[in-house]
Amino acid sequence: MVQKSKEQKVALTLREIADEVNGRVVGDPNYVVTGISTIQDADSNSLTFLANPKYRKFVSTTRAGAILINEDPGVAGKNFIVVDDPYLAFAKILAKHFYTPPVPAGISKRAIVSENAVIGENVTVGDGTIISDGVSIGDGTYIYPGVFISENSRVGKNALIYPGVIVRENSIIGDNVIIQPGVVIGGDGFGFVPGKNGHFKIPQLGNVVIEDDVEIGANTTIDRGAIGSTVIGKGTKIDNLVQIGHNVTIGKYCLIAAQVGIAGSTKIGNFVMIGGQAGIAGHLEIGDGVQIAAKSGINASIPPGEIVGGIPAVRHRDWLKIVSVWKRLPQLWERVKKLEDKR
Amino acid sequence: MVQKSKEQKVALTLREIADEVNGRVVGDPNYVVTGISTIQDADSNSLTFLANPKYRKFVSTTRAGAILINEDPGVAGKNFIVVDDPYLAFAKILAKHFYTPPVPAGISKRAIVSENAVIGENVTVGDGTIISDGVSIGDGTYIYPGVFISENSRVGKNALIYPGVIVRENSIIGDNVIIQPGVVIGGDGFGFVPGKNGHFKIPQLGNVVIEDDVEIGANTTIDRGAIGSTVIGKGTKIDNLVQIGHNVTIGKYCLIAAQVGIAGSTKIGNFVMIGGQAGIAGHLEIGDGVQIAAKSGINASIPPGEIVGGIPAVRHRDWLKIVSVWKRLPQLWERVKKLEDKR
Amino acid sequence: MVQKSKEQKVALTLREIADEVNGRVVGDPNYVVTGISTIQDADSNSLTFLANPKYRKFVSTTRAGAILINEDPGVAGKNFIVVDDPYLAFAKILAKHFYTPPVPAGISKRAIVSENAVIGENVTVGDGTIISDGVSIGDGTYIYPGVFISENSRVGKNALIYPGVIVRENSIIGDNVIIQPGVVIGGDGFGFVPGKNGHFKIPQLGNVVIEDDVEIGANTTIDRGAIGSTVIGKGTKIDNLVQIGHNVTIGKYCLIAAQVGIAGSTKIGNFVMIGGQAGIAGHLEIGDGVQIAAKSGINASIPPGEIVGGIPAVRHRDWLKIVSVWKRLPQLWERVKKLEDKR
Repeated sequence: MVQKSKEQKVALTLREIADEVNGRVVGDPNYVVTGISTIQDADSNSLTFLANPKYRKFVSTTRAGAILINEDPGVAGKNFIVVDDPYLAFAKILAKHFYTPPVPAGISKRAIVSENAVIGENVTVGDGTIISDGVSIGDGTYIYPGVFISENSRVGKNALIYPGVIVRENSIIGDNVIIQPGVVIGGDGFGFVPGKNGHFKIPQLGNVVIEDDVEIGANTTIDRGAIGSTVIGKGTKIDNLVQIGHNVTIGKYCLIAAQVGIAGSTKIGNFVMIGGQAGIAGHLEIGDGVQIAAKSGINASIPPGEIVGGIPAVRHRDWLKIVSVWKRLPQLWERVKKLEDKR
Repeated sequence: MVQKSKEQKVALTLREIADEVNGRVVGDPNYVVTGISTIQDADSNSLTFLANPKYRKFVSTTRAGAILINEDPGVAGKNFIVVDDPYLAFAKILAKHFYTPPVPAGISKRAIVSENAVIGENVTVGDGTIISDGVSIGDGTYIYPGVFISENSRVGKNALIYPGVIVRENSIIGDNVIIQPGVVIGGDGFGFVPGKNGHFKIPQLGNVVIEDDVEIGANTTIDRGAIGSTVIGKGTKIDNLVQIGHNVTIGKYCLIAAQVGIAGSTKIGNFVMIGGQAGIAGHLEIGDGVQIAAKSGINASIPPGEIVGGIPAVRHRDWLKIVSVWKRLPQLWERVKKLEDKR
Repeated sequence: MVQKSKEQKVALTLREIADEVNGRVVGDPNYVVTGISTIQDADSNSLTFLANPKYRKFVSTTRAGAILINEDPGVAGKNFIVVDDPYLAFAKILAKHFYTPPVPAGISKRAIVSENAVIGENVTVGDGTIISDGVSIGDGTYIYPGVFISENSRVGKNALIYPGVIVRENSIIGDNVIIQPGVVIGGDGFGFVPGKNGHFKIPQLGNVVIEDDVEIGANTTIDRGAIGSTVIGKGTKIDNLVQIGHNVTIGKYCLIAAQVGIAGSTKIGNFVMIGGQAGIAGHLEIGDGVQIAAKSGINASIPPGEIVGGIPAVRHRDWLKIVSVWKRLPQLWERVKKLEDKR
């Protein structure tokens, strides 16, 4: 069970929780929970939730003090809070009562902040962090130690930048952006004119634009545009070790899982979901709402709303059929042989 | 040939080597070697070994002073040390006589060590490294420059942490753990409640637990648990650029090759081997001793002892048969067409 | 449109440009351009280019002041500069007139440079960068802040090393090498002797050798040799998040796209091209001029000049045929069933 530290101990009645999430208590509204937990590991002091049907079996056996759930399961002797979206409700309780944001600490004396950088109110800059010439940092932004923000980059308000992040020159980062450790923003794109006596480097003169509310996972790399910008749209969430090539444009509210690679100049629409280790070739267009299965290889543009998978990717429902035969190829081979023999 | 520096020059007779590795000299036990080498590049001062049968052809042509080998090949005029496991014997000679561990150097004046951190005996902390509040570091641990250890994390004894490693808050790292450069431990897991007006971030309140004797490769990322811990079991070795999602549990003595991705909440047993670039979906169970081929896509749980490969993964022996037909699909197509024509 | 800063404003007549790139003006040779742009986004002050036929449609609609192109398209009222290789010509104009290299800044007082390091003329070392004992840095090399160069490593002349790069001991880096942020050079290779009571670490005693004119993308990892060297040949360009295992040898002028993985001891020839997310097993030989499609899985050596793709990889032209049938497997299955029924 996760609890806050003793000084900040949480104690919530089920009634208070239900009020906050527009839920309805089934059981004892005065019951008090002090921590949160998964449904398997919960004890009587824990609030938990049921969202994934895979875990429904634990509803009758869990020791949880209370369960956020989307309908009353009719199990006696347990407390439930019935709510439309139990996962969202749980996340909101976590965010409000159990998450402790880093405490603003001002500009460290061991940070190196350019005299002509513009630093907002209530900004934290950690030990050894470097803020270069011409940079601006918005109010309330928290920058951990060991970060490098290069010339003329801008960071918005209330952003959170973890240690080891490198932001190269002229990057534009919006409000509320979260950047996990080790991310590289604005590295040179992979642009060369190939030649028999060597490959000529195409100077990468553009930048990276990251809109508001984006989150970027650890050690992900987002290359600067060759000319113009590489753009990550508002509210898009990117997992760890993802590669975003130069001049890629990603729309709003996409979800991009770990180790995905997107090659140069490809345009991704809004609300696109990309599974882990998928790869998308360059100069393609991926429409709004497209869903790409993990490990897919995308070598052609995809119209809006499609669900695709495979290498090369096909419609997901077709992929399921293809794979079902693929697994029986040795059998199919034998059957064809038999037909030939008997002819 | 690798030699130690002149001041530390190694000179070993074959008898001394044989004694150390429980081997038997075939040839001149008084012969002296001063360096180690691969079998192709060896000279008469070098000790080498034969383990991979692919390199057996070099036994008669190598100039090596002596060869660790698992049986006397009956080649005249050469020196052999016959030993059960020549690779292990070679590794042990390397570790004892040719590897120089970093020399303890104390706490650098340019390190930033919190006053309430607990630092053991004989600990090294390099220039610019930050040890935050509430951290403890065990005896004999060596931390290179440019490392960040966040609040309340614990590092065991005799650990070796290379430059650029980021350890976020509340991580627990065991004894003898080796962490290569650029590793991120405890970044937020990829947890969001998707929504039409934006994806709500689920606070990632758990931590990472790394048991004794684990090694982690460069730029690998291991996310903290959402609730509870992400666990890497004792003696497990992880290569570079691997992604371990939140709440993954990995057992003891696993070997995980480069660029593997393991999605959230999956449980991996003991002695599991995972080939490079394989991907494992979330919420699965991979049994003890499972072997997963490189580039596989795992979308279902796997019972203990299975050897699997492919996308999606099937038993490896089935995969070999399927691929054999897959390569002849154009031929199969023609044969079916012919059958139809002749009907 | 990209322009240089006001103080450094560029203004070039088409005649001047044509002279520099051995081109021929079609249109007004006295026309002046002040910036560069893509063909879609160009305005009347911009120079642009046409190389990818996909963008030919924009020739008649672009507002560009002038277009570098490989033959006169016969479009009236527009300015063209006809040149053999428009892409290369454009890149050269960019490099000469629009790219601003970082301005040499000397050795920062906040850098930590060993007294016995040998530093050339006109070298820049940024804040917080650590240059260890026995290191040498060639003339004109620019090292950004937050870099770590470990003992006895050598860096050539006119190299450019971005923030967050970690170079472990004994590495050798040539002239004009560019290393993007977060790269790890010389991490330990993944070498263990597996055992039931734990895996015995094989000390990684070799180093990394990077020849002249190599570029390495962000967060890429290049492991040191176990014994001997991992070698990256002259003029080879490596993209982001690539994994190069221990004792890999890569020839000259290769192009290796993002997220590729190359396992230990594999030898890659000259002018090899490897698409994104491809994986190459260990101990293989890839011949000169081989082209490997994105996402391929290479489990066998490849003779010079082959073009391959797929998992496992086959000749690319075979792969196209195989995939064409693979997509119709459900149809093939039905047809075989029909043949059986009608027999």
